[in-house]
Amino acid sequence: MIQRIAILGTGLLGTSVGLALRASGFSGSISGWNRSKAGAEQALAMRAIDSIALDAIEAARQADITLLAVPIYATLDLMEQLSTILTPSQLLTDVGSTKGQITAAAARLYNKPDRAAFLPGHPMAGKERGGAELGDANLFRNAVWLFTDDPSAQRSATGAALVQAWRELIVQMGSRTIDIDPARHDEMVAWVSHLPQFTATALSALLEEEVGDAPELKDVGGRALREMTRLGASPFSMWRDIAATNTAAIEKALLALEQRLTYLRENLREPALRQEFEQANKFRSGS
Amino acid sequence: MIQRIAILGTGLLGTSVGLALRASGFSGSISGWNRSKAGAEQALAMRAIDSIALDAIEAARQADITLLAVPIYATLDLMEQLSTILTPSQLLTDVGSTKGQITAAAARLYNKPDRAAFLPGHPMAGKERGGAELGDANLFRNAVWLFTDDPSAQRSATGAALVQAWRELIVQMGSRTIDIDPARHDEMVAWVSHLPQFTATALSALLEEEVGDAPELKDVGGRALREMTRLGASPFSMWRDIAATNTAAIEKALLALEQRLTYLRENLREPALRQEFEQANKFRSGS
Repeated sequence: MIQRIAILGTGLLGTSVGLALRASGFSGSISGWNRSKAGAEQALAMRAIDSIALDAIEAARQADITLLAVPIYATLDLMEQLSTILTPSQLLTDVGSTKGQITAAAARLYNKPDRAAFLPGHPMAGKERGGAELGDANLFRNAVWLFTDDPSAQRSATGAALVQAWRELIVQMGSRTIDIDPARHDEMVAWVSHLPQFTATALSALLEEEVGDAPELKDVGGRALREMTRLGASPFSMWRDIAATNTAAIEKALLALEQRLTYLRENLREPALRQEFEQANKFRSGS
Repeated sequence: MIQRIAILGTGLLGTSVGLALRASGFSGSISGWNRSKAGAEQALAMRAIDSIALDAIEAARQADITLLAVPIYATLDLMEQLSTILTPSQLLTDVGSTKGQITAAAARLYNKPDRAAFLPGHPMAGKERGGAELGDANLFRNAVWLFTDDPSAQRSATGAALVQAWRELIVQMGSRTIDIDPARHDEMVAWVSHLPQFTATALSALLEEEVGDAPELKDVGGRALREMTRLGASPFSMWRDIAATNTAAIEKALLALEQRLTYLRENLREPALRQEFEQANKFRSGS
């Protein structure tokens, strides 16, 4: 039933979705729009999309399903712009990393009898660097793709069918889908995704200051150091919107880690250190 | 010139050294002692050693080179015990993760005309879990093996030749050797090794408390979470001695990270966040 998909934003995620759709057998058209032309041309060259759209709004107007794969504030902007343009027989969905504001905007602007359907989504997959050139058809394999859909959404039969079709495409890309409340989503990703990122950023920034002028020390740190700072390469452009739209939950998680580090520092020669290691061991043994 | 090597402690490092020695062509005998018999039997079964020594002191007495591959306080104990037993034509060396106390003990007890030679060493290689069964002939390939030798060491010709022979064996195992002052060593590893470890321990312990009862959330976190908590599996038994023998340097590094996290938390919606990300990006782009 899906003939045309539009991908707005052909960065790492948008390009990977295009590649994964093709790899899992989707045979309709995929048009792609990107803020910088070079990113769209790269995605086209990789056959993640089969045409470049010069106008995001026009691309969405012509598609059955439009995927917003841009940063969160750009997603919210496009949601506003498209809300009165799309029809009830079209679906808009996204990959934004925080879901509170996007899900609220969806309730306000979509999922009503005279509006298009909106399905808020968040694939738990990525790389520490972005860009179409890193696009990967297998990025979503064995990943979790979260949805924070609104149970009270009012959709046309076509809108509801497109939601179902998109969920099936995600499964065909190799992801496991989980439905979760948006507030719970944002609280949870603050712990398991945003806290690890900001920890790596702080650690990398600190180490750049302390040992950045002695590159041979990075070799000395070996695999452990490489892994603990890999996310230090993550782009601000993506994390700015996450920090701004999930501030309270991230503040809470960071404060908890600061306190935990202080406790550890004050107990380096005390029996409490053993308990901290045992508690940490438990987290890993369960995984 | 080396006929007999003794490895005291056949855990991950001791067993890996035995395997790496064999893989790089060492054809003399390798005897192994371990506090728990099972660890020595495992190393023997893997051919990392070719005989089990029941007594550590006796094994060292019979060897040209003895490698201490036990935790730091056990290393210091054995250094005391062996100092009056070994002869000037024997070499004792170690793999301890902090070098201040061990190098000071070496100056006090070894490297004198009537004493054996001692070469303080520290391979920057390991795994988050220990044990002979994880022993790996390639563990030291492309790793850095640090030495904190004393330029004023007084060694017999045989002692000096054994030091040179051991350094060559390390290179044959695939490691790059770097000589460094022991105080500088301990300060440096506090940043590039101990800080990442204690950060992973604090993060893992915190997450066990916050989301430990919801194992599906670990999947949600994906590769980023796995990498940032992998070191959470590290055993207290090894890190206790590191924390106790490098306390001041680790305290300093932990405090600096706490302050950095606080700064980041207080600037989640401020331009300073961009600078933190750019500083972190710099650390990674140099690597």
